[in-house]
Amino acid sequence: MKTSFFSDLLATLFDRPLWLEATPSAQPMHELCKELLAGSGEITGMRTARTILSRYKSMTKEEKITFFQYLTEELDVDASAIIAAARQYGASPDARGFAKLSEASEPPRQEFLRRLNRVPGATGELVRMRLDLLGLCDKYPEFARADIDFVHLFKSWFNRGFLVLRHIDWHTPANILEKIIEYEAVHAINSWDELRRRLLPVDRRCFAFFHPAMVDEPLIFVEVALLRDIPGSIQAVLAEERHHIQPAQADTAVFYSISNCQAGLKGISFGNSLIKQVVEELSQEMPNLKNFVTLSPIPGLSRWLEKRAENHDEIAKKVLVASENGDGDVAALRDDLRALASVYLLEEKRSDGLPIDPVARFHLGNGASVHEVHALADKSANGLKQSCGAMVNYLYDLKTVEQNHENFVTQNIVASSRSVKAAAKSASMKRGTVANV
Amino acid sequence: MKTSFFSDLLATLFDRPLWLEATPSAQPMHELCKELLAGSGEITGMRTARTILSRYKSMTKEEKITFFQYLTEELDVDASAIIAAARQYGASPDARGFAKLSEASEPPRQEFLRRLNRVPGATGELVRMRLDLLGLCDKYPEFARADIDFVHLFKSWFNRGFLVLRHIDWHTPANILEKIIEYEAVHAINSWDELRRRLLPVDRRCFAFFHPAMVDEPLIFVEVALLRDIPGSIQAVLAEERHHIQPAQADTAVFYSISNCQAGLKGISFGNSLIKQVVEELSQEMPNLKNFVTLSPIPGLSRWLEKRAENHDEIAKKVLVASENGDGDVAALRDDLRALASVYLLEEKRSDGLPIDPVARFHLGNGASVHEVHALADKSANGLKQSCGAMVNYLYDLKTVEQNHENFVTQNIVASSRSVKAAAKSASMKRGTVANV
Amino acid sequence: MKTSFFSDLLATLFDRPLWLEATPSAQPMHELCKELLAGSGEITGMRTARTILSRYKSMTKEEKITFFQYLTEELDVDASAIIAAARQYGASPDARGFAKLSEASEPPRQEFLRRLNRVPGATGELVRMRLDLLGLCDKYPEFARADIDFVHLFKSWFNRGFLVLRHIDWHTPANILEKIIEYEAVHAINSWDELRRRLLPVDRRCFAFFHPAMVDEPLIFVEVALLRDIPGSIQAVLAEERHHIQPAQADTAVFYSISNCQAGLKGISFGNSLIKQVVEELSQEMPNLKNFVTLSPIPGLSRWLEKRAENHDEIAKKVLVASENGDGDVAALRDDLRALASVYLLEEKRSDGLPIDPVARFHLGNGASVHEVHALADKSANGLKQSCGAMVNYLYDLKTVEQNHENFVTQNIVASSRSVKAAAKSASMKRGTVANV
Amino acid sequence: MKTSFFSDLLATLFDRPLWLEATPSAQPMHELCKELLAGSGEITGMRTARTILSRYKSMTKEEKITFFQYLTEELDVDASAIIAAARQYGASPDARGFAKLSEASEPPRQEFLRRLNRVPGATGELVRMRLDLLGLCDKYPEFARADIDFVHLFKSWFNRGFLVLRHIDWHTPANILEKIIEYEAVHAINSWDELRRRLLPVDRRCFAFFHPAMVDEPLIFVEVALLRDIPGSIQAVLAEERHHIQPAQADTAVFYSISNCQAGLKGISFGNSLIKQVVEELSQEMPNLKNFVTLSPIPGLSRWLEKRAENHDEIAKKVLVASENGDGDVAALRDDLRALASVYLLEEKRSDGLPIDPVARFHLGNGASVHEVHALADKSANGLKQSCGAMVNYLYDLKTVEQNHENFVTQNIVASSRSVKAAAKSASMKRGTVANV
Repeated sequence: MKTSFFSDLLATLFDRPLWLEATPSAQPMHELCKELLAGSGEITGMRTARTILSRYKSMTKEEKITFFQYLTEELDVDASAIIAAARQYGASPDARGFAKLSEASEPPRQEFLRRLNRVPGATGELVRMRLDLLGLCDKYPEFARADIDFVHLFKSWFNRGFLVLRHIDWHTPANILEKIIEYEAVHAINSWDELRRRLLPVDRRCFAFFHPAMVDEPLIFVEVALLRDIPGSIQAVLAEERHHIQPAQADTAVFYSISNCQAGLKGISFGNSLIKQVVEELSQEMPNLKNFVTLSPIPGLSRWLEKRAENHDEIAKKVLVASENGDGDVAALRDDLRALASVYLLEEKRSDGLPIDPVARFHLGNGASVHEVHALADKSANGLKQSCGAMVNYLYDLKTVEQNHENFVTQNIVASSRSVKAAAKSASMKRGTVANV
Repeated sequence: MKTSFFSDLLATLFDRPLWLEATPSAQPMHELCKELLAGSGEITGMRTARTILSRYKSMTKEEKITFFQYLTEELDVDASAIIAAARQYGASPDARGFAKLSEASEPPRQEFLRRLNRVPGATGELVRMRLDLLGLCDKYPEFARADIDFVHLFKSWFNRGFLVLRHIDWHTPANILEKIIEYEAVHAINSWDELRRRLLPVDRRCFAFFHPAMVDEPLIFVEVALLRDIPGSIQAVLAEERHHIQPAQADTAVFYSISNCQAGLKGISFGNSLIKQVVEELSQEMPNLKNFVTLSPIPGLSRWLEKRAENHDEIAKKVLVASENGDGDVAALRDDLRALASVYLLEEKRSDGLPIDPVARFHLGNGASVHEVHALADKSANGLKQSCGAMVNYLYDLKTVEQNHENFVTQNIVASSRSVKAAAKSASMKRGTVANV
Repeated sequence: MKTSFFSDLLATLFDRPLWLEATPSAQPMHELCKELLAGSGEITGMRTARTILSRYKSMTKEEKITFFQYLTEELDVDASAIIAAARQYGASPDARGFAKLSEASEPPRQEFLRRLNRVPGATGELVRMRLDLLGLCDKYPEFARADIDFVHLFKSWFNRGFLVLRHIDWHTPANILEKIIEYEAVHAINSWDELRRRLLPVDRRCFAFFHPAMVDEPLIFVEVALLRDIPGSIQAVLAEERHHIQPAQADTAVFYSISNCQAGLKGISFGNSLIKQVVEELSQEMPNLKNFVTLSPIPGLSRWLEKRAENHDEIAKKVLVASENGDGDVAALRDDLRALASVYLLEEKRSDGLPIDPVARFHLGNGASVHEVHALADKSANGLKQSCGAMVNYLYDLKTVEQNHENFVTQNIVASSRSVKAAAKSASMKRGTVANV
Repeated sequence: MKTSFFSDLLATLFDRPLWLEATPSAQPMHELCKELLAGSGEITGMRTARTILSRYKSMTKEEKITFFQYLTEELDVDASAIIAAARQYGASPDARGFAKLSEASEPPRQEFLRRLNRVPGATGELVRMRLDLLGLCDKYPEFARADIDFVHLFKSWFNRGFLVLRHIDWHTPANILEKIIEYEAVHAINSWDELRRRLLPVDRRCFAFFHPAMVDEPLIFVEVALLRDIPGSIQAVLAEERHHIQPAQADTAVFYSISNCQAGLKGISFGNSLIKQVVEELSQEMPNLKNFVTLSPIPGLSRWLEKRAENHDEIAKKVLVASENGDGDVAALRDDLRALASVYLLEEKRSDGLPIDPVARFHLGNGASVHEVHALADKSANGLKQSCGAMVNYLYDLKTVEQNHENFVTQNIVASSRSVKAAAKSASMKRGTVANV
């Protein structure tokens, strides 16, 4: 870290100037919007923007629908103007023509949103606005047109180069920590004491991406456990009473929970480089670390087993029945479950050739490999329900991660360890036997 | 300032991860560019981006021209594809069609630049890249098409809501201060001692806008002197030996120098709200301040006087001759000069109805008014040369600034004080007399 | 805030250098202590200090007693050496003699503690060491000699000029906030949700003093409520559901809880200037604030009433009985209780002439006045027990605070409002009547 | 770095509260002093302290003498009171007696200085006050008594555990950097450009100790060059045009300049652990570093040679004459000079058995060894004058530094390399020959 001067920059980013207080206004919303788009004065414009954003917050659902209709219909492009400009540019491709074409083909709502965003603090409000919009797209499919422009701008604003990686620990401000509690999507954090147990011990780490214009809001975060071995049980990792190890004694970093925080940023991905960057941070801090793995849920496994059961896969049936009776019954079938889960992860694909499991797609797309599958790894009610208690380690090996990624993206090849391959094969063989009967 | 946690965010924004080191590559540049646009993996993409940016830096001018030609021609829109998409959307305006149209009408170079920008530190490099591009646009006018996309993205990235206002003072890091010395465009700072005199005294202030992704680089800054009266001489303001006053005793804040720093951000304006925000900061800190004025150059005055002199305006001739002999001779003509300068500022307009003086356009556009004109206000060689030593105070009165702005923008009305109006009138009358002879 | 550079200073204050790791040592403790005192090398000395501090932490109570005996007896002054040096200095008061006298009269344990304190993080450990010592002084009264030297050094190290006032809010790091929960001594904070309610609302504030060498530990903190009037009920102030007001609408700041945090710093007072400084901070932020008051417990009231009851004060008896039945019964006696509490606060003194109530001594010593007494102000079990539910507002009026302090300290005068004086008088008269019967 | 929260602590340490403005007072200084000592109110006391400190600043030299006389005489201990208290404590060593003895034996000026120090910013002012005092001690030797108390308090306040190590670089605030220019005591920095050359290149480092209560003032700093070899010429190290190397390529860190900054802290040493700590910082950052050496002046060499010359040492004479003619003439005698300098460093001792060279005492006392002696290492006028251009590398070898220190402190053993020993021996032999003639 070079400069504490710069570190203060953000502090002022959110000091809202007094002249920017929203002024109560009796004007109808669409007039304010027109004014914002028409206005040339930056100061007036910022004040109008502030007023629009404040007004929006207190709108009813119906008013919001009207507002989004306005965005969708009134601030849309004019197809005929585009055609005219494109024809002219096609005939004579000069800068002037290109400028006209650019102007014609960008819907005014993009400029509208950019002008709203001039106001300090607006970025977060626009993310929440889009969350409303997303919730309405099912009923009002035409709103998806406006959504395309939100996404377009968010991709520009939340460009990877603007994101910041931060350690989250017990010294982190409480207002951020309560967001961590709120946004944890994999293994719920039920109290501040539980949060403390995930952050304070020397063998735990947490990292998050932030954006400079939304510093109160993590975008995505990952929780890490430092261990002596690759773990096969999330309950062991999260146990209230457990032996803490010194970081220097660990050989394995486990990413046991990754949570996206901003539903309003759906479709703008941050996770791809997060793990990679965290792997590097941890490697530098602790050269003793040899393995970087996840301990991941297999969210679609039970559903897939159900389908197999419907198709008379007796083992799948048994496993499902056992898992309804609790982990005790599953224990007897652990090899079968492990084998089935391996098949599910390695062989079951969508029509586009990618794995059907969303978590698998995420990690394999990052260049990880399927390293080990564990039955009885998540004995919680939720774990038994979604995957009969099975979990999987994805391995991030810096030496192969690029090649894995390339193979996965271009040829849909799923990288995996011998052990998992063997498990999948054994299941296929059994299945074969069954089928032959 | 709420949170020191967040203030550390930026610190890590510029820690370039090791895996992001540019790797030497023998691939031709245009192949790297294609790869960047084609690639789906974020990590590989960031590494390619890093390689392109590093390669670019070591390019010859010829290679850069080839690179920009590639951007301009190869990464341009396809007019016929736009026309097709626009037709379809015009016929049936649904989200799918809109997505297609959006995609068709955005030139691939925008996505190309966004992907380059994923790399930490890239934003500043892209600003420098555009500076190169601007330097080539005269000779290669087609490059202006690529420039339109740079501007488009910069307007989004350097959105007012992302900018940060910072005090610059003698506690500011040296690497920033040397930029202030370098970028000062109005009254040159010739040494660190001179800089110290502008920053350290209790009756001096300096403010700058920064962007979180370019923290080493001020975007624009303004220097302020606190005084007991509205000043009429820049030499008095900047005198090495002068009486320092306590801030609490000042009634006037003088913006005596405003400098844009980034030539690569030409066309993306930051100045509009800077002064306004500084006025507010100062008002809060020092309620005793009554006047907020500039002491501004009149850069086009001499040229305009020359034209008048060519048209047989005898007074203009005399003033020009006097100013060549130094400020002593001008003293005798100070009223004439003041009157002529007033005419120049209030009455001389471009074909679009705005004043011909660029500094006047800037401040009047911000809502300031022409408050007072001073002869013998800048006795430096440069001052005598550009304006026969005359300078002007623009007044920022928070009560009228909005209305002034509106009148100026919509009706080209130049707000001015009685005193300046009277001076302009007196000149016009004299002129009238002369003409009648 | 001028200096972000400096703000990083502390960050490194606690980076313990590697060479300072405590090295396991088989040496007996008293030999390590001798070595520390004898040694001249700073590096070796710091390592020895680190070893002593680490060793101390793992000592049994018996070992600690031995250690303090060593401090008390072995590292004491030599009275005869002092007498010799003082005689010589008395006879010929030169610098050399003064140096000898200084050296002779300072017990070696002071230098011993100073050398321990050279190690990063030692200050906090020495505070905890003294806490152990204090716990042993009753049984080992001679340890009070060592304690005098701890106090002597702490007064120097925790000099008011080294203390730092900090806002505590919901943006404060969790590790500090959990200390606030732990140390709250007046109105217990039972959960993070409750803490949040005391810190997050716009009409709440909290301030603490810190020391740069013990940044993880608040020394003392005060909780503030912003209100529209001087409050007479702590339950109303702390109500879970209550109307939040905008700071600009408040006219009263209530210090409703002040807690000392470090038992190991007993006798080193920080509170005196804390409230005064907070009053000033709040005044600057909110010029609308007119009243600065406490809402304080009256911890000795019930005990005092019991004594009166024993002396046949029938009203005191009634009040005590009523308060055992809950606040409902007290309601009927509220005027009596208020009158008695006023007497207690204004008239009951210790042998040194100061009020017997410790909270009263604290605030009156700061220059506050007894402003109002409220019955039924603390309906909690604890409130009813300690003061039959009565509480008191002490008023901090910046105009009179100095004079009040002076009068209190020099003449034991208790400043109070007319209303409280009248209440006390009414009680005395009743008492008079009763007595006359 | 764990805690950004805490890093803000210091920011407020220097916000001087308004109520602490010094109030003009007509009271004589000694009355103010008495008031400060007598007063019990912290607030009043702090205001009085502020007034005393402000008054002191504007005193004439005569007034300061009177003030120090007051400190020395009026605020001295009472020898007879000490004797009485010591007798009593000797007879019956209880806590009460010890408290009395402690009180009697501490001169009131210590409490006086502690009370002055309660005021924000006072610490630096007291350091400057002592600087005045030191300047008067020659003429007023009795002031040394007061000085003993200044030193006593400073040792407590500037305890090593309170000091903070900071990187100084081109991102450091200008107000600190101008102090570096001002305080550089070994190789003068003549301009900001020169400073830039010492701080900005990747192969340069600078570290300083700061105290939290004097953040504007470095206490001591060291400048470091990263090189490929142990250097033998300071001009080569400081050359304006030189090849910069990447830190990863360096094998040697050279401490080429160490400067104490605060003359008012004379006698309170900070340097002992500075180099050691910097060695560790650099080792962690760059594991490639193998050698940690100084390139140090030999300030007493010429004077010593002159004495030898007076005693008819012909070689010493020649060397002195040569060095007056410039470095060209010295070149011919480089082996002789190197040999003499080695003798000087290894063999010439003070009456206490320590080397006569002060720089040698400093580094050898830290545990360094004399590693190499270079003639023609400092060709500047000053270098030729003080040491005929010779310089020396002291080596900090972490493996031997403790033992060296111990040997040096307890037995006056000077650790040195074989090469330097051999050089010294050769000189002694020559000298022997000469003597025999």
